[in-house]
Order: sequence, then C-alpha cells, then structure tokens
Amino acid sequence: MANKIKELFENNFSKWYTTVILESQLADYGASKGTMIFRPYGYALWKNIQKYLGEMIEELGVEDVYFPLFFPYEFLQREATHVKGFAPEVAIIDYAGGKKLDKPLVIRPTSETVMYEAFSRWIKSYKDLPLKINQWANVVRWEKRTQFFLRTSEFLWQEGHTAHATKTEADDMVFKALNMYERFLQDILAMYGIKGYKTDSEKFAGALFTTTIEALMKSKKALQSCTSHQLGQGFAKAFNVQFLDNSNKLNYVWQTSWGLSTRIIGGLIAQHGDEFGLKLPYKIAPVQVVIIPIYKSEKEKREVVRFTKILEQILNGSGIRIFTDLDEDNTPGWKFNFWEIKGVPLRVEVGPNEVAENKLTVFNRASRKRVVLFKNNKVGKEILKLLDDYHADLLLEAKKFTEENTYDVNSEGELKELLSTNKIGFYRIFFKDSEQVATYLQNKYKITPRVVPFTSYEELGNDFITGEKGARITLFAKAY
Amino acid sequence: MANKIKELFENNFSKWYTTVILESQLADYGASKGTMIFRPYGYALWKNIQKYLGEMIEELGVEDVYFPLFFPYEFLQREATHVKGFAPEVAIIDYAGGKKLDKPLVIRPTSETVMYEAFSRWIKSYKDLPLKINQWANVVRWEKRTQFFLRTSEFLWQEGHTAHATKTEADDMVFKALNMYERFLQDILAMYGIKGYKTDSEKFAGALFTTTIEALMKSKKALQSCTSHQLGQGFAKAFNVQFLDNSNKLNYVWQTSWGLSTRIIGGLIAQHGDEFGLKLPYKIAPVQVVIIPIYKSEKEKREVVRFTKILEQILNGSGIRIFTDLDEDNTPGWKFNFWEIKGVPLRVEVGPNEVAENKLTVFNRASRKRVVLFKNNKVGKEILKLLDDYHADLLLEAKKFTEENTYDVNSEGELKELLSTNKIGFYRIFFKDSEQVATYLQNKYKITPRVVPFTSYEELGNDFITGEKGARITLFAKAY
Repeated sequence: MANKIKELFENNFSKWYTTVILESQLADYGASKGTMIFRPYGYALWKNIQKYLGEMIEELGVEDVYFPLFFPYEFLQREATHVKGFAPEVAIIDYAGGKKLDKPLVIRPTSETVMYEAFSRWIKSYKDLPLKINQWANVVRWEKRTQFFLRTSEFLWQEGHTAHATKTEADDMVFKALNMYERFLQDILAMYGIKGYKTDSEKFAGALFTTTIEALMKSKKALQSCTSHQLGQGFAKAFNVQFLDNSNKLNYVWQTSWGLSTRIIGGLIAQHGDEFGLKLPYKIAPVQVVIIPIYKSEKEKREVVRFTKILEQILNGSGIRIFTDLDEDNTPGWKFNFWEIKGVPLRVEVGPNEVAENKLTVFNRASRKRVVLFKNNKVGKEILKLLDDYHADLLLEAKKFTEENTYDVNSEGELKELLSTNKIGFYRIFFKDSEQVATYLQNKYKITPRVVPFTSYEELGNDFITGEKGARITLFAKAY
Repeated sequence: MANKIKELFENNFSKWYTTVILESQLADYGASKGTMIFRPYGYALWKNIQKYLGEMIEELGVEDVYFPLFFPYEFLQREATHVKGFAPEVAIIDYAGGKKLDKPLVIRPTSETVMYEAFSRWIKSYKDLPLKINQWANVVRWEKRTQFFLRTSEFLWQEGHTAHATKTEADDMVFKALNMYERFLQDILAMYGIKGYKTDSEKFAGALFTTTIEALMKSKKALQSCTSHQLGQGFAKAFNVQFLDNSNKLNYVWQTSWGLSTRIIGGLIAQHGDEFGLKLPYKIAPVQVVIIPIYKSEKEKREVVRFTKILEQILNGSGIRIFTDLDEDNTPGWKFNFWEIKGVPLRVEVGPNEVAENKLTVFNRASRKRVVLFKNNKVGKEILKLLDDYHADLLLEAKKFTEENTYDVNSEGELKELLSTNKIGFYRIFFKDSEQVATYLQNKYKITPRVVPFTSYEELGNDFITGEKGARITLFAKAY
C-alpha cells in the first residue's frame, strides 16, 4: 500500500486523494450517488474543528441557533440574484407524510432566506442590533462530479449571519469573520492561503462583495477555504428587515454572512499530504502520538510493553492524545507505514535499546527526522514542543509550496507558455474584473479568478487581455 | 405576563407550554408548517445536553460518525416491519439539481438502513466486533399535529447503533444505553421517569424489544424520554451483515439502536415548569444565576453596581454562568418575573442593604425560599451548593408528582371512574400485551400502554379486561 500511495502521489493526485481517505478510514462512499460517510477517524476532525472554531465564533459575540432544514421554494425567489445562483443545485421535497405537498419545499443550500424571514420579526428597533447568530448544520447542493469532502451533495458547515445598523459596522463584521478564519487556518490547521476579494463573477449570489482565503493544494489547484460576505441591504429589502433608529426613522439593516465547511478537511488533506499519506494538523488529529512497541522475544515484549504503559500515563497526563499499537498480526515496519498513511504527527518507537537506556525515539511525520528523548518527567512537555515544531513545519511547507507555484503573468502568451510547460499554480495577473474575460479564460484555459489579494489591492495596472486601465492583481488558478 | 402565565398553567397547559417557550425566547415558529427555530437560549440547552450525554456515550466506547441525510427509498423496504412503521411519515426528494431523479430518495426518519448497508461492508470477521457508533443529526418525520420540541417535522437527536457477535452482548448493550439515559435524566436534567419495556404495539418498527424511560409531565400526560432497542438479527438479514466467527463460520450480527432527541427539552419544560414559568436544570441552564441590582439614587446605583461587578468576578471564578441584568428600562419587580419565566435557577438580589452588610440575598426558583450569604471567598462554593439543592428539589418534586398521579386500576369500571373524576396520570394495570385490547383502550379512553416497569416485571396477574392469565403490570396514560 505504501508503494502504491507513493506512485499515485507522483502520477495521479486525485486517485491518491481518494485512496488515502479510504485507506486511513477517514470516510467511505454513501449509498446514494454524491454522498459520503464520515467514519470515526474523519468525523473526529470535524468535531475538533467545531470545538476550536466554535470558541472563536463565541469570542466574536455570536450565538448558536438552529433553523429548519427546509423552507418554501418561494423564499429563494425573493432575492433575484440569490435564486439564480442556487436554483440549479437545490433538492426539492414535494411529497411527504403520504401525500403530495401543496407547495414544494427546498432543502437548505444556505440559510439566508429562512433566517432573514425570522429577522424581520425579531428586529424592531436599533436596540435589537447588532443581531449575530451562527448555526452548525448540514446543507444540500446537488453536484454532478463529486469528491470526498471537497464536493458532495450534502456537506456540513457553520454559517454565521449578522444584521447591523450601518454599512460600516457590517463591513467591520465581514473582516472580523475573515480574520478569524485566517487565525483558525494558521493556528489550528497549519494551512496557508491568500486573503482577498472575490471577483464579481465568483462572489456569493446576493452579496455586495465576498472575501475569501484561497489555498493552493499539492495538486496545484486552488481551494476556496472559507468566505465572508457583505450582503448589503438586498436581503433586508426582500424580507423587509427594518428597524427604528434612535431618531425614530425606519431603516433597512445591513447584513453579513460567512461560512466554513467540511470542504476544509479536503483542503488540509490536499495541502499537507505527501507521498507517504496524510499529515494531520496535530491540534485536530484524533491520534497525536502513536507508540509502536518493537520486540523479538517474549521477555523483550514484557519489558517493552511495561515501558509503553508508563509512557502512556505520562503523556496522558500532559493531555496528549496517544495510541499504542499492540496488534500482534502486523510487524513494526507495517505499522510505521500504516500510521504514516493515517497522518499521525509523531511516532514513538520503543524497543529493547530504548528500554535499556530509558529513552524513546520520536519520528516527526513532517520533517521525517528522528530525535531521542529521555523518559523522565519532562518528556510530556518535550513532546508538546515537538508537536509545535511539527505544526510550524506544516505551515512553512504550505507557504513555501504556494510561493514556489505562483507565477507572474503579463500576457496571454506567457500564460500559454506556463500551461504548456506544466507550470501550474497561482497566476498573478492584472485583471479588470469582467465576466466576459473570465468566461474566455475559463473556457480556453480552465482557469478562473480565485482571489484579488488585499496585499496588492492598491496596485493598479492594465488588463492583461484587453489592456484596459484600472486592473488589479488577481490570482487565477485551476480550482476545486 | 406573569399573571397570564399563572392563569394558563392552571387552566390551559398546552397554551402555557407554547407561551413560556415564546416568552422566554427558547424557540420560535419556522416558516413552513411543523418546523421550529431554536433561538440562542433554547439551542444552548441542546449544546449542553450534547456535551454531557456525549461524554457518557464516549465512556461506553462508542465513536461518533456522520451518515448521509438521504438514501434510496428501497432501503426502507428491505425490512418489512420497518417500512410499515416509517413509510407514512417520510419526506421524499424526487427532484434535485434541476431534474427529476430516477429513483426517489428518503430523508432519514432514522438511520438503521443507511448505516447497516455500510456495516455489511465494514464487518467481515469477529475481530471487527463489537462495532459501536453514534451520530448527532437532524431527522425528518412528517407530523400532522405539531408542538415545539415535543413533535416537529424535523428534530435533532443522537442515534447509537451497535453490532455484536451474540444476543447476550447485544442485550447487555441495550441495558447499558438505557442505564446511561437514566443517569443522564437524573443527574443532568433532574428528571424522573419509569424504566421498563415497551409493549409490542409500541415497540420500534423492526425491533425484538424496546426499552424506555417514560416520564409524567405536569399536564399528567406521559412522554417517552428515550428508547433503547434490541434489533435482533432482522436488519442483519435484510442488509446481509455477516461475520466469520473464530471457528470460521458465517453468522449474522446482533444489533442495537438507541436514541434521545430534542423532545427531551419539551420534557424538561413540561415536567419541571410551574405557574411562574420555566425551571431549567442548572447543569444545562444558559444562565445559572441572575443578578438583579436594586437601587433608587445615583449614589446607590454606583455602590450596587460596583458590588455586583466584584460578585461577578467571584462567581465566574467558580465556573458559574451568571448574568447581571443592568437594563434601565425595567424595574426590579419586572425583572424578577422575567427571569422566573426564563427558569433561571437562582436569583441574587443586591440592594443598598446588601451592600452595607456585604451580603447577598439568594432566591431559589424551585423552593421559592430566600437565603442570605456573605460576600466572601466561600460564596462561590455556597452558590454551587445551592444549585445542587435546587437540582435535588426539582428531582424530588418530579418524583413526588409522578407518584401522586399514579393510580392502581383493577377493572374497566375503576378506569372509567378515574377518568370521569379527572384523576389523570399513570394507570397501573395488569395487561396481557395484546394489540386488540390496546386499540380498544386507545379508541375508547385515549390512553395507550406506555411502559411495563422493570421493578414489577416478575409479578404476574390476570388481564384487567379479558381476565387472561400471565398479564404484567403496565403503566397506561394519555401520551405526547
């Protein structure tokens, strides 16, 4: 299996992706097309994501709620752009409880409409603002081509929704949410991405503007890791969400929504993975340290196992999630490969030598280096330090990979040249946001505008196709 | 509002129920019929339930997973009893992604079938057993008459599913799950119920037998608070879930499933509530202690508010969830009523007297008694003790109420007499489990067999209607 995974990583990334997910038992196929099963090892990642991101959301003063899974189809239609964006991919209930429904119901592809209908009842005065809520839920968007985590008919996510008295406050919320995601990606998932605006062709159906963090995968394709939208007053007008301000005048609220989904699990697999399998960020890894006992004789086994029991106690005491692989059916070498495929950050090898010298050999899955530690009362702290090093290794590698695969492109000729020599990645291009040019590039080169980075937002130039002035640096890429 | 709630509690419980839920902002109506919105105050209850029950489930060695929301209709049909039970209330997707589906999909009313299809692929040998998984998810069952929490078209729950090599092991799991629920109800929700078997007419569609804890509400109607099913080998045969035992012979697995849903929130409202509103179990209450500052002059206000700030710090330090109501628009009296409706366990009253004597007056929402504590470094501990007393008060009250409203019934005449004199509650009746008699009683008296208590299971008598031997004591009641 290890050889097969290595070969696939080099020659067929999408098959590598599916294979490591199945082999490491993160997920399995669902019974009906486009669905997936989160197995315990995969669902644990989502639970830990919920824990860390949930705390950050709470720190923003946002409260959790739960809204219904389905609502009248008519709701989608109230905001013209919104229905245009979502109608093609919704699933419809039109038969329930033994009979045909009078009016078909939509299974939520996102919850703006069903939530804002309630906002219109809850918000009366400026004292009710800001209203800031979040929900963790499943959503359904019918997809033709599906892939574990990255694209499935049903996925899990959180969606934050806020209403404010002024545009400025709503803008502020958009960036607070985006910055929260950036911290989450870096500090928890060790992921690297580029923060900026979506172009008009790629923004959320119904938004004034959309911000995002776009991350480059090992396949050199880009993934939208999260989004945060300024919704303006469009939905407020469609759902009549008004408030009396302190001079007793009626105004429409300004709204934002922002989300991160189980797609991010696909993202961390495809950004961190390598020829040996997964590399899980340690903060969310179900197993942070795997202990592999190595022995030949029964006597060695007794000593080694006793040693690992003590070690387990010490590491548990430091709050480290450990697993000791005592399976008798497999060799240590087989176990090394198996747990590397599963992406466990650190492997502790304990054999007769380690027992004799009261030490442990620790292998770092990212740097692939071994260090030797003494088994004493500092070892928990030292392992935690190694986990932090591992985290830094992942993040640095992701950043380096992204930078190495980002190309400046000044003309269509240069773009052609890069594509034809298989130089795939982010293309930094002066682009004057236009549906027409975007469509042309998508059809001809299969690339789309991913993000207009904040860092170079003020830099204006001429559109690389049309020569038009006022173009901004935009990252194009093939995308998930 | 306080008067209205008092009047409703005495004269119209079901209106009381809806009113306290809306007034305390636990929930609101969803846009489409039969759906509800969990507002922050209500969803916080479910989050805390998930936290406590989730830990107990984990202690049973059960791992969390997530399976798809929808699956082929044909799955339901594979187990004959199962489809008969669920077909009338399922919702169907037959249009998605812009076109009619070849085969209709069912939105899960429960996940036995979609899970066991996967079990048949995952389980090969006795080494793969026991398999123990759980999922927290939304399910849909189309209901005609709906009521917040108690009966809604969509609800949230956890469903545990296990597969075992032998019937004995599966039986053991059924009771482990049931005992876990009992501990959870008592220790976390302060709820009282009667543990036992369901009769054949009331057991789960597809189970060998079903166990439950049946709880009496203040309306004197019974609520099924949870269920734990022995599924036997019926689903294993329908989905071909077989394993090679250690003598290399193929066997079908024995399965269990068990669940608890957001219905339980309706249960704790209707078991604990009273003429003043909600009484929330403190372990899951979003606000455990509300502090009400009382003052007349600006000077008093400054002193009182400073006092409450210090108190907040002390109580926060003890991990107590507190809220200080500083709203200037309402009087202390109004606030007393408001927070009583919301069911906050303890109210701390701080006025100029309290400040002068460095003390606080604490009102217990259950006993309605006040005690005075000194504001010193022991006060956090003392408040925690009062919260435990409050918990004990709730549990005792629930037990007492259940016992006071349980009647021995020896003949149909006695039953008629009780019903006609408005003595409603649990009826302890010798009943020889029979569909025919159950239907007769349901049609004529609107009562159904709720539970065959374990405690009196060995006691045999003659059926109170037919006189048949071998009848067991069964609790009948009007039910939610």
